[in-house]
Amino acid sequence: MEFVERRSGISLWRQIADQIRIAISNGEFDESGALPGELALARRFEVNRHTVRSAIASLAREGVLRVEQGRGTFIARHTKLQYPIGRRTRFSAGLAGQIKSRGGFLKSHVTEAATGHVSRALELEPGAPVLRLERVSSADGVPVSRGISWFDAERFPDFANRYESRKSITAVLNSYDIEDYVRISTRISAHHADPATLDDLKLSPGAITLRTEAVNAEVAGRRLEYSHTFFAADRIELDIDHQAGTALP
Amino acid sequence: MEFVERRSGISLWRQIADQIRIAISNGEFDESGALPGELALARRFEVNRHTVRSAIASLAREGVLRVEQGRGTFIARHTKLQYPIGRRTRFSAGLAGQIKSRGGFLKSHVTEAATGHVSRALELEPGAPVLRLERVSSADGVPVSRGISWFDAERFPDFANRYESRKSITAVLNSYDIEDYVRISTRISAHHADPATLDDLKLSPGAITLRTEAVNAEVAGRRLEYSHTFFAADRIELDIDHQAGTALP
Repeated sequence: MEFVERRSGISLWRQIADQIRIAISNGEFDESGALPGELALARRFEVNRHTVRSAIASLAREGVLRVEQGRGTFIARHTKLQYPIGRRTRFSAGLAGQIKSRGGFLKSHVTEAATGHVSRALELEPGAPVLRLERVSSADGVPVSRGISWFDAERFPDFANRYESRKSITAVLNSYDIEDYVRISTRISAHHADPATLDDLKLSPGAITLRTEAVNAEVAGRRLEYSHTFFAADRIELDIDHQAGTALP
Repeated sequence: MEFVERRSGISLWRQIADQIRIAISNGEFDESGALPGELALARRFEVNRHTVRSAIASLAREGVLRVEQGRGTFIARHTKLQYPIGRRTRFSAGLAGQIKSRGGFLKSHVTEAATGHVSRALELEPGAPVLRLERVSSADGVPVSRGISWFDAERFPDFANRYESRKSITAVLNSYDIEDYVRISTRISAHHADPATLDDLKLSPGAITLRTEAVNAEVAGRRLEYSHTFFAADRIELDIDHQAGTALP
């Protein structure tokens, strides 16, 4: 165990927890819903039972597994939300049917000068004033994503105030007479969560996030929103909709 | 440092390395290409210089940073490949223009009984014979992904042999008179790499992988391929093509 930590910076129990998670998501245990016993898992992963026990305890704390005294350890069903990403990506509609309530809050808003990345994405001059909104979104009371969005501050001077009352990007854009918008690019990467994300999403240090870098535009092409969103990889998966392009008017 | 390791199973230097990586990918240092000095980074991340030095050394080993003696530390340009995912996802075409050569090898092939996940994805009866191909793909000599694909073994009895000579899924499908195929679903998640993936992709323990679970089908809808692919998250990002749906005939 010590050896693995020194080489990788990741403890063995955390590596085993993630391997059990992968095996579950691969459907390897899905016939009965019961997890194999500690001894079988210890043999499979070539570690000792103590390490397996720590991994199981960590997955039980996260709600991936359910330990029933005297009966065994079971896989909790539907352990991750499916967040659809397509031409018409909307947070509110995306999780419909999977959760009872959605929520979130505006963590900060500030007007700043557009850096290179932001100005290129929004097709503005470098240094042009942009509004930076930082939001945390939750599903059934559990935070699932932390997002930073940039908008043209000259075009949408009152955006933050309108967002405070409407709580929806789509509703604010509607209030500026923008009836529809589409996703034109999404880039997806994976990282260890940074401290701000750990804090906002109530994650343990070392947790993984899926990061999307996205541009939304009016249907005619004018850029509207550039965003970086960090999703808790233990709680959510991204489901790419390859059909959405054809469903547009 | 000890404290953080105990809480999370992830050492502080690795967390700081990943935060530097995120700052780079956010474009925070992109004007000059030079990384701030050790002292500035130590203040920013509220850690000591020793931790920053370990983080920088690890990013230099991975090729994300370039240390020039006496001049400073610089950001290597284009640190990650962009792998496009859309209706017409092809490994060979996807990295064109970004790399000089692609390669890879067939690690194993076996005919097995379809489990629940595989049979549902391929729309076969549970237990139907399926061919399981395991492949490792590389770009400019560096392994970038490890993939497992399943095909209907009764429909494609000679698939593995044909793959050995043609080295391309598309070419093998062509040989069965399947001229075109499309991606119908892609689900994306992130995990710590499992031991097989660490080994195949020559990663350090604790490395993160992006995992795609995908279904390809004939244009008329008949299912062809179900796959799980693990991409080295330090080497590749996924670039979603939202336009591809409309470009179909």
